Amino acid sequence: MKKDIFAKHIGIEIIEAGEGKAVGRLKTSGDHLNGLGIVHGGVIFSLADTTFAAASNSREGIAVAANVSISYCKAAQQGTLVARAEEVSLSRKLATYLVKVFDEEDSLVALFQGTVYRKVK
Amino acid sequence: MKKDIFAKHIGIEIIEAGEGKAVGRLKTSGDHLNGLGIVHGGVIFSLADTTFAAASNSREGIAVAANVSISYCKAAQQGTLVARAEEVSLSRKLATYLVKVFDEEDSLVALFQGTVYRKVK
Amino acid sequence: MKKDIFAKHIGIEIIEAGEGKAVGRLKTSGDHLNGLGIVHGGVIFSLADTTFAAASNSREGIAVAANVSISYCKAAQQGTLVARAEEVSLSRKLATYLVKVFDEEDSLVALFQGTVYRKVK
Amino acid sequence: MKKDIFAKHIGIEIIEAGEGKAVGRLKTSGDHLNGLGIVHGGVIFSLADTTFAAASNSREGIAVAANVSISYCKAAQQGTLVARAEEVSLSRKLATYLVKVFDEEDSLVALFQGTVYRKVK
Repeated sequence: MKKDIFAKHIGIEIIEAGEGKAVGRLKTSGDHLNGLGIVHGGVIFSLADTTFAAASNSREGIAVAANVSISYCKAAQQGTLVARAEEVSLSRKLATYLVKVFDEEDSLVALFQGTVYRKVK
Repeated sequence: MKKDIFAKHIGIEIIEAGEGKAVGRLKTSGDHLNGLGIVHGGVIFSLADTTFAAASNSREGIAVAANVSISYCKAAQQGTLVARAEEVSLSRKLATYLVKVFDEEDSLVALFQGTVYRKVK
Repeated sequence: MKKDIFAKHIGIEIIEAGEGKAVGRLKTSGDHLNGLGIVHGGVIFSLADTTFAAASNSREGIAVAANVSISYCKAAQQGTLVARAEEVSLSRKLATYLVKVFDEEDSLVALFQGTVYRKVK
Repeated sequence: MKKDIFAKHIGIEIIEAGEGKAVGRLKTSGDHLNGLGIVHGGVIFSLADTTFAAASNSREGIAVAANVSISYCKAAQQGTLVARAEEVSLSRKLATYLVKVFDEEDSLVALFQGTVYRKVK
């Protein structure tokens, strides 16, 4: 994570990570908006995806995303977004995580589900 | 698209858009890498997502992403990425698009499938 | 649901449904196995999907599935499977549900995420 | 596939399979309908999923579905449905397939994207 240049570049911080869980945060600014004046889907995805990477890489070995799905639940206005990732299954080669992204009012902005392939050293 | 600040901020260009199709391009730089030194999943997603938005908004009305899924096929190294979006179905209220992201060697980097809800004015 | 012939045909029962939630159940038999001798992905999906339909149609109007994603977490052996659907977001035209499918040992077999388009009468 | 009891039970046939591709077919009957009188999402999924399994298992080793996403493009009435699966990427441990399901008028009913984990013997 310390070397995740893109995440830093757009302002994503990982606040907590360990034992298959992680919490990420992003204070959105004008740079994060799309053509409709709301937070870009790619920003919300990047926050969820980075938090997912932090959670999945808190386990032994290297976790590489194979497949990811996101549902957008509510348009996000400027403000601080928080992503919470939890591990829903872990096997030797695959693991699945659920990430919820919330806005400042604690409303769900997006639901993200991701599967990683685990390269155990 | 002209007002899509985030897409511009990270360097995404829409080269073509019309009749349910679009082509997007991104020349990746060091700013786009993740902690493993390859292009961040959020960058690839943002390119696909912005191209999907261009394709879906080439139709009448406003198209809002409801649900999106992406499979990562190959790690992307630095270079130019190209996304090609095509419409696979269009009904009055919903439409579905398939977006393929290719690297400089024309290898498939990611396969993206997205559904929009259409707000016809 | 009472008229859901396919669900009945393969043995799916909806035990509870209301206020955006539902619980479905399936006692698997030899008819539900795939070529590897484990429960077919289509069976697990059908159980999750039928429970998702029960949850989403417990709201006013008719809910039509637009997009669905499923991650398989563990191979399911014969026995009783239970699906639990919860609503994670509800807006005027779209709603999103999360469905978890468990085996007899209460281990997670699959994680399902679905978005409906709502036709309010 | 010869031992895929569930697929046979609901009437799915694999017409062709080899080199990462497959074609599946299902003649729908009254048993395949949902509560709205159209073909059940679980039926369409099972056809796509079985065709995906045939395509992915046409390669060396055993392919196990990790993650799958489906978008429903058009309500399917009774008649013959055909699914066509193609391989979009193949690496040592993961492979991704795209499956299109068509109705009798050759209209796209569903778009399915699936990733397998490959257990090479």
